[in-house]
Amino acid sequence: MEGKNRMEQGNVLDGLHEECGVFGIYDFDGGNVASSVYYGLLALQHRGQESCGIAVGDTDGPRKVTTHKGMGLVNEVFTPEILENMHGDIGVGHTRYSTAGSSTRENAQPLVLNYIKGTLAVAHNGNLINAPQLRRELEYSGAIFQTTIDSEVIAYHIARERVNSASVEEAVSHAMNKIQGAYSLVVMSPRKLVGARDPYGFRPLCIGKRDNTYILASESCALQTIGAEFVRDVEPGEIVSISPKYGIVSDKSHCLPKEKAARCIFEYIYFARPDSHIDGVSVYGSRIEAGKYLAMDSPVDADLVVGVPESGNAAALGYSLQSGIPYGTAFVKNSYIGRTFIKPKQSNRESSVQVKLSVLKEAVAGKRIIMIDDSIVRGTTSDRIVKMLRDAGATEVHMRVSSPPFLYPCYFGTDVPAREQLIAYNRTVEDIRQVIGADSLAYLKLERLSDMVGGLPYCSGCFTGKYPLDPPTEDIRGDYDK
Amino acid sequence: MEGKNRMEQGNVLDGLHEECGVFGIYDFDGGNVASSVYYGLLALQHRGQESCGIAVGDTDGPRKVTTHKGMGLVNEVFTPEILENMHGDIGVGHTRYSTAGSSTRENAQPLVLNYIKGTLAVAHNGNLINAPQLRRELEYSGAIFQTTIDSEVIAYHIARERVNSASVEEAVSHAMNKIQGAYSLVVMSPRKLVGARDPYGFRPLCIGKRDNTYILASESCALQTIGAEFVRDVEPGEIVSISPKYGIVSDKSHCLPKEKAARCIFEYIYFARPDSHIDGVSVYGSRIEAGKYLAMDSPVDADLVVGVPESGNAAALGYSLQSGIPYGTAFVKNSYIGRTFIKPKQSNRESSVQVKLSVLKEAVAGKRIIMIDDSIVRGTTSDRIVKMLRDAGATEVHMRVSSPPFLYPCYFGTDVPAREQLIAYNRTVEDIRQVIGADSLAYLKLERLSDMVGGLPYCSGCFTGKYPLDPPTEDIRGDYDK
Amino acid sequence: MEGKNRMEQGNVLDGLHEECGVFGIYDFDGGNVASSVYYGLLALQHRGQESCGIAVGDTDGPRKVTTHKGMGLVNEVFTPEILENMHGDIGVGHTRYSTAGSSTRENAQPLVLNYIKGTLAVAHNGNLINAPQLRRELEYSGAIFQTTIDSEVIAYHIARERVNSASVEEAVSHAMNKIQGAYSLVVMSPRKLVGARDPYGFRPLCIGKRDNTYILASESCALQTIGAEFVRDVEPGEIVSISPKYGIVSDKSHCLPKEKAARCIFEYIYFARPDSHIDGVSVYGSRIEAGKYLAMDSPVDADLVVGVPESGNAAALGYSLQSGIPYGTAFVKNSYIGRTFIKPKQSNRESSVQVKLSVLKEAVAGKRIIMIDDSIVRGTTSDRIVKMLRDAGATEVHMRVSSPPFLYPCYFGTDVPAREQLIAYNRTVEDIRQVIGADSLAYLKLERLSDMVGGLPYCSGCFTGKYPLDPPTEDIRGDYDK
Amino acid sequence: MEGKNRMEQGNVLDGLHEECGVFGIYDFDGGNVASSVYYGLLALQHRGQESCGIAVGDTDGPRKVTTHKGMGLVNEVFTPEILENMHGDIGVGHTRYSTAGSSTRENAQPLVLNYIKGTLAVAHNGNLINAPQLRRELEYSGAIFQTTIDSEVIAYHIARERVNSASVEEAVSHAMNKIQGAYSLVVMSPRKLVGARDPYGFRPLCIGKRDNTYILASESCALQTIGAEFVRDVEPGEIVSISPKYGIVSDKSHCLPKEKAARCIFEYIYFARPDSHIDGVSVYGSRIEAGKYLAMDSPVDADLVVGVPESGNAAALGYSLQSGIPYGTAFVKNSYIGRTFIKPKQSNRESSVQVKLSVLKEAVAGKRIIMIDDSIVRGTTSDRIVKMLRDAGATEVHMRVSSPPFLYPCYFGTDVPAREQLIAYNRTVEDIRQVIGADSLAYLKLERLSDMVGGLPYCSGCFTGKYPLDPPTEDIRGDYDK
Repeated sequence: MEGKNRMEQGNVLDGLHEECGVFGIYDFDGGNVASSVYYGLLALQHRGQESCGIAVGDTDGPRKVTTHKGMGLVNEVFTPEILENMHGDIGVGHTRYSTAGSSTRENAQPLVLNYIKGTLAVAHNGNLINAPQLRRELEYSGAIFQTTIDSEVIAYHIARERVNSASVEEAVSHAMNKIQGAYSLVVMSPRKLVGARDPYGFRPLCIGKRDNTYILASESCALQTIGAEFVRDVEPGEIVSISPKYGIVSDKSHCLPKEKAARCIFEYIYFARPDSHIDGVSVYGSRIEAGKYLAMDSPVDADLVVGVPESGNAAALGYSLQSGIPYGTAFVKNSYIGRTFIKPKQSNRESSVQVKLSVLKEAVAGKRIIMIDDSIVRGTTSDRIVKMLRDAGATEVHMRVSSPPFLYPCYFGTDVPAREQLIAYNRTVEDIRQVIGADSLAYLKLERLSDMVGGLPYCSGCFTGKYPLDPPTEDIRGDYDK
Repeated sequence: MEGKNRMEQGNVLDGLHEECGVFGIYDFDGGNVASSVYYGLLALQHRGQESCGIAVGDTDGPRKVTTHKGMGLVNEVFTPEILENMHGDIGVGHTRYSTAGSSTRENAQPLVLNYIKGTLAVAHNGNLINAPQLRRELEYSGAIFQTTIDSEVIAYHIARERVNSASVEEAVSHAMNKIQGAYSLVVMSPRKLVGARDPYGFRPLCIGKRDNTYILASESCALQTIGAEFVRDVEPGEIVSISPKYGIVSDKSHCLPKEKAARCIFEYIYFARPDSHIDGVSVYGSRIEAGKYLAMDSPVDADLVVGVPESGNAAALGYSLQSGIPYGTAFVKNSYIGRTFIKPKQSNRESSVQVKLSVLKEAVAGKRIIMIDDSIVRGTTSDRIVKMLRDAGATEVHMRVSSPPFLYPCYFGTDVPAREQLIAYNRTVEDIRQVIGADSLAYLKLERLSDMVGGLPYCSGCFTGKYPLDPPTEDIRGDYDK
Repeated sequence: MEGKNRMEQGNVLDGLHEECGVFGIYDFDGGNVASSVYYGLLALQHRGQESCGIAVGDTDGPRKVTTHKGMGLVNEVFTPEILENMHGDIGVGHTRYSTAGSSTRENAQPLVLNYIKGTLAVAHNGNLINAPQLRRELEYSGAIFQTTIDSEVIAYHIARERVNSASVEEAVSHAMNKIQGAYSLVVMSPRKLVGARDPYGFRPLCIGKRDNTYILASESCALQTIGAEFVRDVEPGEIVSISPKYGIVSDKSHCLPKEKAARCIFEYIYFARPDSHIDGVSVYGSRIEAGKYLAMDSPVDADLVVGVPESGNAAALGYSLQSGIPYGTAFVKNSYIGRTFIKPKQSNRESSVQVKLSVLKEAVAGKRIIMIDDSIVRGTTSDRIVKMLRDAGATEVHMRVSSPPFLYPCYFGTDVPAREQLIAYNRTVEDIRQVIGADSLAYLKLERLSDMVGGLPYCSGCFTGKYPLDPPTEDIRGDYDK
Repeated sequence: MEGKNRMEQGNVLDGLHEECGVFGIYDFDGGNVASSVYYGLLALQHRGQESCGIAVGDTDGPRKVTTHKGMGLVNEVFTPEILENMHGDIGVGHTRYSTAGSSTRENAQPLVLNYIKGTLAVAHNGNLINAPQLRRELEYSGAIFQTTIDSEVIAYHIARERVNSASVEEAVSHAMNKIQGAYSLVVMSPRKLVGARDPYGFRPLCIGKRDNTYILASESCALQTIGAEFVRDVEPGEIVSISPKYGIVSDKSHCLPKEKAARCIFEYIYFARPDSHIDGVSVYGSRIEAGKYLAMDSPVDADLVVGVPESGNAAALGYSLQSGIPYGTAFVKNSYIGRTFIKPKQSNRESSVQVKLSVLKEAVAGKRIIMIDDSIVRGTTSDRIVKMLRDAGATEVHMRVSSPPFLYPCYFGTDVPAREQLIAYNRTVEDIRQVIGADSLAYLKLERLSDMVGGLPYCSGCFTGKYPLDPPTEDIRGDYDK
């Protein structure tokens, strides 16, 4: 992703942004869960770095819900004191990057609200494509909205359906009849933890277990972090309801035939952490595969394969394994460049890329380099990195990209630049090669994607413009201030 | 108020707390209003020091609403940078002390929300006595609540009524059919500024004007601060709608006969700023009157009349004028004792009262002192102050209180200690005198209240237990977390 | 002081600034003193609001010194946590307004340093007139300076003298042979608390006692606040050394004949708190006297005497007592206008004075007013206040000032505007009257000052240009950055 | 370094701590340098994360020095506003981890002081072994110390020598006759930038150039970041003085014969950034070499070589290259775990290592793993990581360490745990292997160090106990509070 990598704090390079991470936990033995939510969110920090929040409740006793949210990283928003004052055996957490709804504290999640049955906390990852219509309908019946996030639309539907439903999960099910688009949900009700995934399964959600404690998380890496075992993925369209009384109860009434699923392929390519498994496929493994296919389909004679840190590294390793060309390290990344980093101005002699990445001259001087990145969005960073390698003495620079050219907007939870800003828009691969100044350039072939994820059905709308659902006819970015 | 005075920052002494100040402004010429809201809120800071907020909107163009709220004083929450980024010709502001709804940032006002007609901002001063019932009814129809403040209940009713109303003021009027209790409201709709006061007129609200700019404010002192003229009070039960197209339009359909009004008498005694006029009566003047009546009804031979700063000073002046006994200053108040002041612990040699107040020995030594305070709540502070005067050499200390004994709870927007904590509960005046250690003690007679405010009808529920509305049958403090 | 009063936070009005408050304490029984320093500093906050600091040490055991300093008010710089982590039975504190040395955290006091005998903490109030020469001399012998405050010069001299002195107080005495100007010092050495006052006694310093704990403080008001008794003033030129072994030991070798003393008369007029006594004279009492003299020397027929809050109130009371004209209140001050208050811009419709002060119309309308202030510096505020009274309906406004016209710079610890900015510079009293728009104007006569302070010798350099010491020939404001 | 790597923020794992980074810059064309110091410090952040600071001066005009220092990372301490208010064409910067002198804001560097010739700013990396004696000597001549850092001792010597020296560099030279130990210094005087390195060259320092701007930096990586060219290293014992008038002037009078040099070998092994060159040797290259020697000296049959991120990666690559065993990635590091990360308590189910590192199961399952780390300090982290690999399915775990066993304290600028805490203390390699649970364990042989750094003389005191200078006889950690 042009040097912008999953591990990087904030949008320092011009890559894609993931949208959100969700986490839920319920300790049937009544232990406090706040700190486990904290560690879980740390493991999901790469999915959203703008704001975060935790809500915990007590299923026993006064059932008071304690919430803390703020702008910034999990590290910054939570102090030991805050965490210690959050008591309860059930909790949800959220890390957010805003794709719909502006970036303000009011829009931080989880959304905590009182409704007919007590307090509900909702954490949501994804984008509803019919949110504007649903908001209007609700407003026509007298609803008020205090945020500009889709989660409030979802919460309203759950609350309204709850009036005539036997349970919160039934209300969620009824709400799913109305909401359309990408969503992985974790809902904390007074005595149940509910998870749900849209019928296409755009965004991941999985179930974990640690002794008598149950967990819902966007990615399995969060389970490993808190010492929990992976139980299984929530299936596309499935609702799971977790409670001591009934254990894990599954409702698959919204599930579509398996081949209709449309997982976001970019979760594998770039968004998810390599140590996560999504729907049975290892993210790391899929990236190794992508690298191997690149080596098969677009071979080139060279001395060294390197990844653009850190998201290009796995594919670089795959390329090396397949081609036999040695794998190496060409870059040193400065990991102290955080969100509050002061970007160089035009008048400065420094550049952002230069401040963030250095080249290891001894590793590349005099060598023909194959440089692997996961994607090219605007191309400005790739251009600079190719030049840095040449300045360091690389004799040739061949770029390989472990995804197809990015050409169409995404309506399902990814923050995509306007089409005109995409380097692949209206350009051939040869055009792009010239812009970035590489000696050769090749992308992963579209037909390799299916094999890359072991045959799982996926959404490739951003490459093909063909979406599993009709794209929305109006702006869904959710700036509803009038 | 036992040394706790209106001007004091935070609840350092154990007095009563006012609840809120509201402010609204609309510049028909399109000028920016944010800084005038800021100065207006500074003038209303005494009405609430827990949190504050401003929302401004543009009646022209994109009609985007900008909001900033936070915990703390107006001075602390707003920086020049924040204020400069708030653009718009219409705005509302709020200062809050929580009487219902817990003290959290989520509960700060104004409440800003999107509804069928755009963005609404609601600022509210008062307490609804039927808020719990109204919340339940709303929840049964699928409403969700994100705060625990009454204002959200009011906003919901306005939003629901707006669906079938011709205008926002009509929706407010319909909402007023449902909500009961004390409220002064300022509502900012996309193109109108609306003010409303409950039919009993518990809390004040007035209209001001500066060139082509119209203002609504809890107290007239805020008008003077921003250089505006006082136009008139909003009448109990009146709704005013302000817009360039129609000017000030009044709806008096909710008004009761004038003698039914029930203004909070404590606004005159203690809450309001002395430079305010409420419903035609000068707050300062009413306090002078109270002091005069005390001198008539409870005379005593003495050398000096002093006020407990600062709320006792006006009554002390009145007492002096009537009795001919010289007025003087006995106390120096440390005005640097802010909200974040570290209170002495039991183990400290210092005491809170001592840190906040000093006695001017040369003023009181060898003298018989008449000390005037506006009220006695728990009595602990009065006790200390009497002792401090004696320690400084006063030969006699006669306490006079410019209000009747405080005996009953208030349900209409005042934060009242539990009855058992009130010193006057189950005690005669002579009992109280002994507790505080004064040589004599007298309260303002109940029958003087009417004259004190020039014959205006008022609520004296806290003295008599007789309320203009039936008190609520359930807890209305609004902690709805379940 | 033109509405700028001692109690006001920060330089919101354009008055004079006091420079510093010092505080020292030693508990011979080994109790912790940090919180008492905190409360003492709160009582001395009016002497300096830019920065503050506390250093405490353990005279027993490891003798570690803990220091905390910061920009801002005592309330803001100290949290309960910080205070609780400051352990020790001996301590010094300081509140600062910068008259020499720029306003930065580096320059906050007390200055804590290690020298030959351990750790020394120095708190200083005043200005040395030979600081630049002394700095140069020290630099020529290899000294380095990390601050731009005089206290570092003093500390150096103590440290150098200490090498050949038998005790810290002897070193202080030797240092006093070199330093010239205004200083009240509190020095904490590993096992002694030392206080010293310059031979002219420009700035106050007094001794207090609470059980077995000894206190040094700029003003006696700080003793009252912490529940200590006033023992006596440190005499001009005296050094006192306080230790369990020797009690209070006095060294008067630097004392001049009593008639040579040159106390700052502005301490009585404006700087000190009214509840303080300085060198046997009540500050409050001296202000009452000033008012009386004004009434004798400059009588006028009127209906009401009012003070500009709060520093004009005592003189107004004196005027009223002498003249028989009733005393009253004309102004309401907004005490929420703190240091961080956003001042109105030129483009605003509001003005600083208007935001800070309101007039009580009912108190002044139709009346002839005598308005008393302690001084006029630039005159801009007086001008506005006179106008505000007239706008409120006062038929006449007669201004009386409880000090002579301010005409010359001060080199002894007061922050004085440049001469050209002083309204009295090159203007007759009649000129000034016209500028401020009063119906009449009179200042306190110079010859009344002596009586006002009971015959104590004082410095009147700012009125007469005659100083007890030759003024410095170079800039002593201490901006030594080169 | 047991998972603690150079890039990691703060001491989250129990590794060694580097002490400081220094940076100086002088633009002969008069351009502002503050932002370049900022970017330079970002590149030196790995050398110290406790506090940082920048001082800039104007060599022309008023020559005012502006300083900003604070606790925390460069990112946190500097805002755009602060940086924009720092004007000047000459500047120094510092990043600090405290090895001597406690961790407080007072001790942050650069130390800025006024002395005979104006303002001096001193930035220092290293530890003086005779600092306590020098402090005492200075104190006996009346010196005062406001910090507990060695830099103040150095500054004093420069200031004292400056009195009788012709230039600041001559004063530095004279000071170097007295100070002993490890130091790389950057000194900003009013019109010169001076760099100096102790005669043994313990800590690095190099010179760079960008157009007409000259730079001094701890490591060459900082030159690359700001777009400057590497000119040369400052030699051990050399003083360089940089000014427009004389260019770069070198004084080698303190240089020892080249073979006497004693560079810290841990700079190559772990402290320095891999993209730096120190004294002609590539840090990255030396780590590759270390890995190769490990493969030669301690071969083992296995399926995969992995590095403990990130400092073990280069040596792992070297091992792979030499052995032919494939290089791979076994760990995912969570780079959001910053300094403010809340560490798991004993009662938590999470562990620090687990939160920071995850294992890529698919990469290691069923494989025999060679795991390379740069060092083992306490061993607790290695123990956990070995276990994590086994839990992920590794069939064998062979640990190789790219440095000899760490056995003795360091007195030259490294923060070393007490000897008893070192795992190698009193243990054989076989003992250690058992403690950490590896199948085999081998360290780099001592005799390989020389080849690893191309024959450069180095200090190996921490491995051998043989130091180039006699170790100090008293505690040099600099806690001088008494």
